[in-house]
Amino acid sequence: MSMEETVIGLARETKRASRRVANLSTTAKNGVLRRMAAALIERKAYIQAENEKDLAAGRAKGLASAMLDRLALSDKVIASMVAGLEEVAALPDPVGEIDEMVRRPSGITVGRMRIPLGVIGMIYESRPNVTVDAAALCLKAGNGVILRGGSEAIHSNLALAKVLQDCLAAEKIEPAAIQVIPITDREAVNTMLRLEEYIDLIIPRGGEGLIRFVAENSRIPVLKHYKGVCHVFVDESADYEMAARIVINGKVQRPGVCNALETLLVHEKTAAEFLPLVGAQLATAGVEIRGCPATRALLPAAKAAAPDDWGREFLDLILAVKVVADLDEALAHIEAHGSQHTEVIVTNDYAHAQRFLREADASSVMVNASTRFNDGGQFGLGAEIGISTTKLHAYGPMGLRELTTRKFIVYGDGQIRS
Amino acid sequence: MSMEETVIGLARETKRASRRVANLSTTAKNGVLRRMAAALIERKAYIQAENEKDLAAGRAKGLASAMLDRLALSDKVIASMVAGLEEVAALPDPVGEIDEMVRRPSGITVGRMRIPLGVIGMIYESRPNVTVDAAALCLKAGNGVILRGGSEAIHSNLALAKVLQDCLAAEKIEPAAIQVIPITDREAVNTMLRLEEYIDLIIPRGGEGLIRFVAENSRIPVLKHYKGVCHVFVDESADYEMAARIVINGKVQRPGVCNALETLLVHEKTAAEFLPLVGAQLATAGVEIRGCPATRALLPAAKAAAPDDWGREFLDLILAVKVVADLDEALAHIEAHGSQHTEVIVTNDYAHAQRFLREADASSVMVNASTRFNDGGQFGLGAEIGISTTKLHAYGPMGLRELTTRKFIVYGDGQIRS
Repeated sequence: MSMEETVIGLARETKRASRRVANLSTTAKNGVLRRMAAALIERKAYIQAENEKDLAAGRAKGLASAMLDRLALSDKVIASMVAGLEEVAALPDPVGEIDEMVRRPSGITVGRMRIPLGVIGMIYESRPNVTVDAAALCLKAGNGVILRGGSEAIHSNLALAKVLQDCLAAEKIEPAAIQVIPITDREAVNTMLRLEEYIDLIIPRGGEGLIRFVAENSRIPVLKHYKGVCHVFVDESADYEMAARIVINGKVQRPGVCNALETLLVHEKTAAEFLPLVGAQLATAGVEIRGCPATRALLPAAKAAAPDDWGREFLDLILAVKVVADLDEALAHIEAHGSQHTEVIVTNDYAHAQRFLREADASSVMVNASTRFNDGGQFGLGAEIGISTTKLHAYGPMGLRELTTRKFIVYGDGQIRS
Repeated sequence: MSMEETVIGLARETKRASRRVANLSTTAKNGVLRRMAAALIERKAYIQAENEKDLAAGRAKGLASAMLDRLALSDKVIASMVAGLEEVAALPDPVGEIDEMVRRPSGITVGRMRIPLGVIGMIYESRPNVTVDAAALCLKAGNGVILRGGSEAIHSNLALAKVLQDCLAAEKIEPAAIQVIPITDREAVNTMLRLEEYIDLIIPRGGEGLIRFVAENSRIPVLKHYKGVCHVFVDESADYEMAARIVINGKVQRPGVCNALETLLVHEKTAAEFLPLVGAQLATAGVEIRGCPATRALLPAAKAAAPDDWGREFLDLILAVKVVADLDEALAHIEAHGSQHTEVIVTNDYAHAQRFLREADASSVMVNASTRFNDGGQFGLGAEIGISTTKLHAYGPMGLRELTTRKFIVYGDGQIRS
């Protein structure tokens, strides 16, 4: 069987299984999720032995130690996957929710029922725990899932899938509802992206290169998460202590994630007092500042920002800082350089707060809070499968509901149209 | 300037104008919509003179009279466009709606604000009134719109766009917010479908060929509406008079539209009594029946259904009829042959009604009502821009809200993440 036939056969099976998963009761779904949690612990030795094959191959290939760390299914990582499964089992089931039911003049009653999307294709890099986290969310939302992880994690991903599939089988659910593509060749991704007949949505997670490749080659709708270039604008009326706290938290707490702060914009009437205050705290935290000329006049230790430092995702202890004339210039800078991820204003001006909330074009727009709050857990969605910077279907953190859609349902008693 | 440069330049301008339209007040949007309604009447002579150029070209090319009818901007069609503009002006503005606001344990208040999608690309055939209807809905939802109608309507579409753009200019809104692509070459569509930087959503309206072409060549998300192969299943417990009324209404009232009935499924215990009853009414209405062997045993006048009559969109006074063993077989038939448009059960069995509502996979699933109700106006959405059979973003009739998305907004008072 050719590579292409293998992928197509597997996707067809998942589509078939997805119809059964769509109609499972909440109790059945939660039962199998809890069984999976138990199975990860029971079969830890098997999982870690398979993981060791990937780690050995990685070491032989000279992978950086940070990469090997991300690949390792340590006891701690397995415990976090177990906790994730328990958490998803505890979330409310979105499938079957009915709302907006209204009686229409014709006499029919119309509303919307939440239903699964069908089959989700996840394409991701490195961390094998995504295999379990994504499978759990897709299953709870009533979907089948086809997973395509990185080639360096193939043994780990297949082992995890085997454990999950055995749990499905034990509960008399078609194991094909969760599949890992067993082929590491990139052509398998290309095949997957053309199977619009069997796959309803593609979610890529990984570097910008992967996401662009998927977006450009997919015939299936893609919910993409490009980079997070988050700004904080410190307005004229800001509380400086609060602003400094929000800047430090955004930049320092976890600089390597997409909701970390990358560019600070400071109102020119604020700069003389605020920049030295926050500059000292940033220096203490080991943050390198790349500033505009006005910033450097106030913070002599700052480096000069290069043109491409605006709109750059540093993912490191580096912060671009620019002094702007007013809210208009701040909004224009964000429009030119933002990534539609997270934008924050620190202000005590009511009208500015409202205008920023309306006009800043990002999946999350905040007043007086850290960029780091842009997260499914923090927003109350439960576990998240990613943060969409695409406006269609879901914009921002994607939880269970974002893995579903709604159909119209109609209750009549014989109505016809005249 | 090359064709490609023209299309790109035009899309770039619309993107720029869309930022302004996104922030217009409801009053401003309604004002310009009402001005457009008045302008269509004032400038009717100009519009009809340009329309006459298309009609003359169509006659010279030997277009069928039905096609010429669809192309004509008669007084009646202009009046319907005027009424459409007034109707859209009267609809509630979805932009700025805030809901799901909740206080989180961290102290931040999080909710969702409805915002425009950005720029919508409409690709459609024939009827030039779509130009006005679509422009009005996109504008009211705060979007820019790029319209690409059929080549046979090019003069009419450009004239209508000119009238609408003059109204925008008179209200000091960038006219580029509404554009008609002035190039009839199909390459212009190809260029449009690659402009993901400027266009956020493509909505094709027209024949299956056009929609497939767009879906296969677009890098931009597409909300497609393939065919409507709608089924009615008459269950064992159905009220036969009600079922006959629903069948006749679905098939006969307007056979050429996508929510018309195409296949009737009849429970085998119902067939002996129900089929002669409905068969007589269908014959009176001039409907040709293509039946399975069991149907033909009861209705000797029926033709034999060919295998490809199942799942076929006749758009004509033809009905496929099949006798099935039970609800399971009806659901399996719909799964195999349905088009995810509209599916109806006629039943008096509570459990069957609930199961059909849950399990039939279509954008609208109904109990005891005509397929013809699947319509934005009938469902209370106001005017509709199409009926999506894609599950992502919008499934079913698309009104103003479906031309928007939601972003997260956060009100804090200095919260940081720990």
